[in-house]
Amino acid sequence: MTLSAPIAPQEDRLAALVKSRYRSNRALSGQWNEALEAILSHRSVRDYLPQSVPAHVIELAVAAAQSAPSSSNLQAWSVIAVEDREIRDRLNAVAGNQRQIAGAPLLLVWLADLARPRDIAETRGGTAEGLDYIESFLLGVIDAALAAQNAVVALESLGLGTCYIGAIRNDPETVARELGLPEGVFPVFGLTVGYPDPGRPADVKPRLGQAAILHRDRYDPGAHRPALDAYNRALGTFQAEQAMPRIDWTEQVSNRIGTVAALKGRHVLKGVIRKLGFALK
Amino acid sequence: MTLSAPIAPQEDRLAALVKSRYRSNRALSGQWNEALEAILSHRSVRDYLPQSVPAHVIELAVAAAQSAPSSSNLQAWSVIAVEDREIRDRLNAVAGNQRQIAGAPLLLVWLADLARPRDIAETRGGTAEGLDYIESFLLGVIDAALAAQNAVVALESLGLGTCYIGAIRNDPETVARELGLPEGVFPVFGLTVGYPDPGRPADVKPRLGQAAILHRDRYDPGAHRPALDAYNRALGTFQAEQAMPRIDWTEQVSNRIGTVAALKGRHVLKGVIRKLGFALK
Repeated sequence: MTLSAPIAPQEDRLAALVKSRYRSNRALSGQWNEALEAILSHRSVRDYLPQSVPAHVIELAVAAAQSAPSSSNLQAWSVIAVEDREIRDRLNAVAGNQRQIAGAPLLLVWLADLARPRDIAETRGGTAEGLDYIESFLLGVIDAALAAQNAVVALESLGLGTCYIGAIRNDPETVARELGLPEGVFPVFGLTVGYPDPGRPADVKPRLGQAAILHRDRYDPGAHRPALDAYNRALGTFQAEQAMPRIDWTEQVSNRIGTVAALKGRHVLKGVIRKLGFALK
Repeated sequence: MTLSAPIAPQEDRLAALVKSRYRSNRALSGQWNEALEAILSHRSVRDYLPQSVPAHVIELAVAAAQSAPSSSNLQAWSVIAVEDREIRDRLNAVAGNQRQIAGAPLLLVWLADLARPRDIAETRGGTAEGLDYIESFLLGVIDAALAAQNAVVALESLGLGTCYIGAIRNDPETVARELGLPEGVFPVFGLTVGYPDPGRPADVKPRLGQAAILHRDRYDPGAHRPALDAYNRALGTFQAEQAMPRIDWTEQVSNRIGTVAALKGRHVLKGVIRKLGFALK
């Protein structure tokens, strides 16, 4: 467990973690522990040292991933640890050549896997009609996401850094070909893993005030509006500290969802998912 | 952090956690910490004490959830903390009246939320064309899942128990009506939260051997086959210990995916998602 030194008394440490997440003096009491430390201090790491990830760390991350809940215990996911440099380079071409993929020693590709349950049912002479529905595709995606996030927390608790790569959904057909995926297996996202480069530290990205996200008993459609100005300012401070271009979050959101072009090829995803063997009924 | 007493030396403790997850003497080295403890010792809790979940614990869980990565920082999710007994009872009717919902003092409903980004873009006078594609629906589902799993680890590190409720997808339209969800908000799953009843302890459920899940550089379609017999036996031992009916996992899988009836109403999910405001292009 890597902690910022010097370590404050535990209650102060928890308050400091919450403050850096919200950039506010939100009072939030509770007892600190190493799990909360790992979770609340998360930052996406895009700059890595060249050293490889030890085999026992990969196995521990997968044990953590398998410890996540799984819908009906179907365990409808798999993960590929891609260390081969040429395969990583070709996957990086799909993702638009991101520096975190080029620099990370390990890329984990998380898969919604309906091929395994299908093989099990068919080997028993049974049918697998349920797999043809969008529900089963979603179940695999959710299983994979819960597993991956457990791996992220475990890896970060051990001092490693990670960054999710949604951009493998820019062209899942090429990803499937490169990784030899059979029908019924969908690459949900990648995850770069490695030891963070201490010379290029990342900081905790602030999030929307909690009142925008947490509803009580019923959904409040206007809950986020009072939070937006403060969040634009908090993110502006973060951007200045990180020497990033200054842009309001509300403008980022509008740019990201405003046009089909901003989907970077993912507007054809439904057809691609079908080609990969999911009927999506 | 709740640990089983007596506490073994740290390396032995990690080995014991991994052993109980796989029911094998798999050697897995590494340094124990409280995050790994919380993750590897996960078990779904279905029996709760009546005491309510303190407000500061809910807020800490949501801070943990918001600390999870979010695709393009869109933060396309929300959560509703349902404590109102009548609403919980009506949601439980959708889920087929599960004891963990009836007995838990808190139900968190995790939402893929495209209504918030849409409101932000439209308030700025912009369009939100990207939201009409299945990619954006998936993005919201993944954001919600990563967030929820962080909350689970945080809650369990604090001694609380949880259980995911996929069954709210049996009838998301009713869930949406009960919770006042606007167009573009989809209930992905529920999560019961409370203090575990020590009189009815749950145990760690074993998972498939790691060789069935973890692939190296390329997907191996036969990777799971050698693992199935040992897993059926491991799960059989678990079932006997928990006084559950004895059934092979391979048979469970076949039953769960074999027929449309086993989807418990979720065969119409695609149409329901569309009704809730997702074009799924």
